[in-house]
Amino acid sequence: MVQEEIRRRNVGALLRHVHLGGPISRAELAGRMGLNRSTILALTAELTAAGLVREDPATETGRAGRPSLVVRPESGRVYVLAVDVAVDRLVAARVGLGGTVLERREAVRPRAGADLDRVVEVLARFGRELHGAAPPEAVCVGIGASYCGMIRPGDGMVRFGPDMGWVDQAFGAELGRRLGLGLPVAVGNEAHLGALAEQRRGAGVGYQNLIYLHGDVGVGGGIIVGGKLLDGDGGYGCELGHMVVNPYDGRPCGCGSHGCLEAEAGERALLDAAGRPAELFGRSAVREVVADADGGDAAASAALRRIGDWLGIGVANLINLFNPGVVIFGGMQRDVYPGTAPQVRARIAANVLPVARERVRLRTSALADDATLIGAAELGFARLLADPLGTLARVAPRPRSGCRVP
Amino acid sequence: MVQEEIRRRNVGALLRHVHLGGPISRAELAGRMGLNRSTILALTAELTAAGLVREDPATETGRAGRPSLVVRPESGRVYVLAVDVAVDRLVAARVGLGGTVLERREAVRPRAGADLDRVVEVLARFGRELHGAAPPEAVCVGIGASYCGMIRPGDGMVRFGPDMGWVDQAFGAELGRRLGLGLPVAVGNEAHLGALAEQRRGAGVGYQNLIYLHGDVGVGGGIIVGGKLLDGDGGYGCELGHMVVNPYDGRPCGCGSHGCLEAEAGERALLDAAGRPAELFGRSAVREVVADADGGDAAASAALRRIGDWLGIGVANLINLFNPGVVIFGGMQRDVYPGTAPQVRARIAANVLPVARERVRLRTSALADDATLIGAAELGFARLLADPLGTLARVAPRPRSGCRVP
Repeated sequence: MVQEEIRRRNVGALLRHVHLGGPISRAELAGRMGLNRSTILALTAELTAAGLVREDPATETGRAGRPSLVVRPESGRVYVLAVDVAVDRLVAARVGLGGTVLERREAVRPRAGADLDRVVEVLARFGRELHGAAPPEAVCVGIGASYCGMIRPGDGMVRFGPDMGWVDQAFGAELGRRLGLGLPVAVGNEAHLGALAEQRRGAGVGYQNLIYLHGDVGVGGGIIVGGKLLDGDGGYGCELGHMVVNPYDGRPCGCGSHGCLEAEAGERALLDAAGRPAELFGRSAVREVVADADGGDAAASAALRRIGDWLGIGVANLINLFNPGVVIFGGMQRDVYPGTAPQVRARIAANVLPVARERVRLRTSALADDATLIGAAELGFARLLADPLGTLARVAPRPRSGCRVP
Repeated sequence: MVQEEIRRRNVGALLRHVHLGGPISRAELAGRMGLNRSTILALTAELTAAGLVREDPATETGRAGRPSLVVRPESGRVYVLAVDVAVDRLVAARVGLGGTVLERREAVRPRAGADLDRVVEVLARFGRELHGAAPPEAVCVGIGASYCGMIRPGDGMVRFGPDMGWVDQAFGAELGRRLGLGLPVAVGNEAHLGALAEQRRGAGVGYQNLIYLHGDVGVGGGIIVGGKLLDGDGGYGCELGHMVVNPYDGRPCGCGSHGCLEAEAGERALLDAAGRPAELFGRSAVREVVADADGGDAAASAALRRIGDWLGIGVANLINLFNPGVVIFGGMQRDVYPGTAPQVRARIAANVLPVARERVRLRTSALADDATLIGAAELGFARLLADPLGTLARVAPRPRSGCRVP
């Protein structure tokens, strides 16, 4: 039983390497996994037979002689459905092994008046369309969803969705029911999933301690500590947007408090500081401020500096707490980064203990607006990667049973 | 080899249960470790033969019939030397399995003018005395040290010791050399070790997500995330005392910045707020303020409320970030807790998202001023617990060789 368990783990570990790292030779796999080549050969053969990987000649080796083979993820056999409920859009995608977005559907989401029923209806329709368009031999192995609010990990309950006013809405269960694919929906907070995605496939690859700031209406956070997402006792950790940075005359925050980081450095703070009217909001309005600052508009530049200073206090506090290798700015915070970075760097220099900042890097999100969707896809792949052949055996034998259209 | 590795881990896991949890029946061990009784019997026999545990009748079972046996840690066979360099004292102790302080030495430490040489000389003398007084059959299996500064984990280098002005001082290596016991000294930051100790033996037992605030001159922190100490990329995480809480007219901080939590809620902030003269400092001065507040002194009460409010902002920020099960107030923060708690609770109610605070508890340190020393002892025990019989075989065969007096 111990041997069988070890084999299962090794099969999963190999598929994870290929899924996350892309094409890789058997020799490299042997080195990274600490296994001998004959074991790698056997594991690769099992995954090849299952249709999850294939071996191809490496391209452009630049060397003469027999081309070496590389193991690649096979994107046609399995896929996950990934769903993203963001403040301004609803996205669903079919994502293959290797993290490839194979097909997607997207709709604008009105900022208010989006109740559970309407949101789930749109997403379920997208999901059924994506499934219907998949090739007949492809099997759906999981469903992952990103949501812009606080999520109970066990069942995907939205405990608090500030921008829609959701409290204790059974989003994960309801989406699963409406999709009718016989698979549970794994739901995560958007910034948590953005952090996961950046660590696995983006600006945080190779980092064990990482802070991801996700800006939209608010400022969310995903924090990786020792390689693992910080979730806390209930799964509600990483709420860096509600760190009080301005305790005196702080701006009111959507959470009911004042002076939170998101109230001082979020979208509305920027637009107000730049003197934009209250009717303007959203990414396009933010990008206009950035463009105006680039064009020499003094008010727009001052607005970016102002939110950059508050952001800098928050980021400095986080570096003192987490001693991270990298801080990644995502969502709207990615757009404003060129204008806010000087203040952020100045605050880090002034407020972070030298020893704690000596190795930290600041970066913008590499996955841009797809970070949360890609993170959701990774949630969907979790079961497959934990036990590839067992998972496939459960969903594959009945043709398309895992994803039949009701 | 796999079987041998599994056996070694099980022996370590059993000893860890007994070391941390105290007397426990074999049946309970079987349940907690998920092993059958015959395996537990074999593991216990090995540890008994090595002199690390013994089996005794349980006392006061309250039941008739044959008394059941419990496995207890044996405190006479092995010990560690634990050392604590605090802002106001130097402590060394011989600590037995089960965390029992068997004997200790302590000296007042002057706040300034303590160079590496003097500190190490006192501690090495204490260590040799403690060793010399140990029974001949007792074996020293490790040395752990707590230091009030930022420590490089690999070699116990003090990167930054603010109150003594130490920068890059080879404390661990030098203490090991002077002790001459042929064992490395594992060094940790005092608040990190306080957190570890409270989680293992104090107010944080059973919590996987825990924040420990350690107050002395400054405010240090130890944070447990998912059962593990948050160390960050370099080992310098948890510096919650340097979270900027007052960005406007913040008091100057020892780190060179202004408005840090320790500048607003530390010892000097309290004493200044209470109108005490600059010459007064230390725990006795803090306790006087607390006593005066208890006696109805309005200025002392107001001073406690003032630092409590800043502390509350910091604690609220931490709860939003970490969603912990418990926040523990240690060191000087334990003394002031009755006077600061109302403000801390008010800030948590105002500033923490309801979902993130629904399960959090606030507690004072159960280990009080020994938290850091007990944490150092746990560092010292780490190698033994990882491989009890192997470690003992390395240090025991030559009589007292691990701890010979030079």
